[in-house]
Amino acid sequence: MGWGTNEQLIIDILAHRNAAQRNLIRKTYREAYGEDLLKSLDEELSSDFERAVVLFTLDPAERDAFLAHEATKRFTSSHWVLMEIACTRSSHELFNVRKAYHDLYKKSLEEDVAHHTKGGYRKLLDPLVSAFRYQGEEVNMTLARSEAKILREKISDKQYSDEEVIRIVTTRSKAQLNATLNHYNTAFGNAINKDLKADPEDEFLKLLRAAIKCLTVPEKYFEKVLRQAINKLGTDEWALTRVVATRAEVDMVRIKEEYQRRNSVTLEKAIAGDTSGDYEKMLLALIGAGDV
Amino acid sequence: MGWGTNEQLIIDILAHRNAAQRNLIRKTYREAYGEDLLKSLDEELSSDFERAVVLFTLDPAERDAFLAHEATKRFTSSHWVLMEIACTRSSHELFNVRKAYHDLYKKSLEEDVAHHTKGGYRKLLDPLVSAFRYQGEEVNMTLARSEAKILREKISDKQYSDEEVIRIVTTRSKAQLNATLNHYNTAFGNAINKDLKADPEDEFLKLLRAAIKCLTVPEKYFEKVLRQAINKLGTDEWALTRVVATRAEVDMVRIKEEYQRRNSVTLEKAIAGDTSGDYEKMLLALIGAGDV
Repeated sequence: MGWGTNEQLIIDILAHRNAAQRNLIRKTYREAYGEDLLKSLDEELSSDFERAVVLFTLDPAERDAFLAHEATKRFTSSHWVLMEIACTRSSHELFNVRKAYHDLYKKSLEEDVAHHTKGGYRKLLDPLVSAFRYQGEEVNMTLARSEAKILREKISDKQYSDEEVIRIVTTRSKAQLNATLNHYNTAFGNAINKDLKADPEDEFLKLLRAAIKCLTVPEKYFEKVLRQAINKLGTDEWALTRVVATRAEVDMVRIKEEYQRRNSVTLEKAIAGDTSGDYEKMLLALIGAGDV
Repeated sequence: MGWGTNEQLIIDILAHRNAAQRNLIRKTYREAYGEDLLKSLDEELSSDFERAVVLFTLDPAERDAFLAHEATKRFTSSHWVLMEIACTRSSHELFNVRKAYHDLYKKSLEEDVAHHTKGGYRKLLDPLVSAFRYQGEEVNMTLARSEAKILREKISDKQYSDEEVIRIVTTRSKAQLNATLNHYNTAFGNAINKDLKADPEDEFLKLLRAAIKCLTVPEKYFEKVLRQAINKLGTDEWALTRVVATRAEVDMVRIKEEYQRRNSVTLEKAIAGDTSGDYEKMLLALIGAGDV
């Protein structure tokens, strides 16, 4: 696949992005290359620029289904991507991902996740991707208190993958979970994620902490993914492209605020300093940067 | 609530039932009694006749959400009803139940199920009610063979609630599961449900067998529920009403065939012999009986 000399045009269109224009890109792409964007993506794109263009252009549900599918395949497997999709999308968005997954892969998301994970990871990830959380703001304070106590007990006993911990994290509404964790903090003097740092190298604990972060303060989670992607020796383009393409139209403004607060440099400057060429221009267009 | 002398009219309308007429009943009910049918149901109906009328008249997704909610409450709790709803509805129907549950109860179905069950029951029921199985007929025979082998090993070791058994039963498409169980039967000489009868009194095993039956031969499952409800000393009206109201417009024809084959008497005759009055007339109208 080659984009010829149209890179600047594509970036220009995307800089003034909206769904209709993206559909236009998709249509143009099909006419020019005779195949669907998603198929090209599946056959592996040759550059970070192309991956960014194609990921962003996809319909959000298809894009997430694609990323989730990639995350269950051997060489691109990632518990983190699965957790991120399950915990930061709304209940209806997540269900649309599951529908798109049926259509694209003739399987269910949860069967692939269950088949390709095991132990604590499966116990956590399968209910996460299958959840259809209640989205109202109603909160039951009695329940918040009793479940904060359960979490505290299990964490004190180092039973991090206990079924009660998993149940609370994977089934409660985000509003309810937030109330529970606020009560945890007030009653026991520590934020739960501090208590979950007992063993900083435990990979399951890292994932559990990240899930809690995604469910309660997603912009902080994404800020950290971006920070680590950019600061890494050699840049993690895979993560950088994913977060920019999936959050551009959702909560990028908040993520940028969070980034600047935490790093004392704008996300624009950080990306510009770490990437180059069309890929750089594309990312900057997607995060809605002016001249850097 | 009193129906006055309208019972025969209601039965007559329901005998020629369709969705528009049911909406009419619902509307008439609201005008006559000043409240929604679902609310009346929640406040406990005084007779089996009324429960049958109200259950049948509800929209299927609301009806299932109501039954599932009832099944998570202390005095009406039932693992069986939850399993039955999760396993015999289509993937989209089950998702509509979950949506109706949000609307009616301001909670998710899976959080109530997880909260009110434990141990093996929770391990089985939570993924069952959260499933969105792929519905295509495509079957992967390599997978069917390898998963039949896993099932056989776990069952031989009496590890009935092993996570691999649960994974296969709760996530695979019905077509895929059927292929796996056919292979099980061919390769190991026994139907899986025969091997799962090791301890006939084990309640978890009973539920697991019933789930497998619901997923593969639902009409046989419903035939058995009806048979046991009718044969029971005193009749189990709760089960009888549920199965008739929920299956009347779905697969009652096949269930009746199955009933006659297994009991050498028609379902009509069996119901007529065991019930009376308006309740009897109502059930017979719902199963589409002529004169008995």
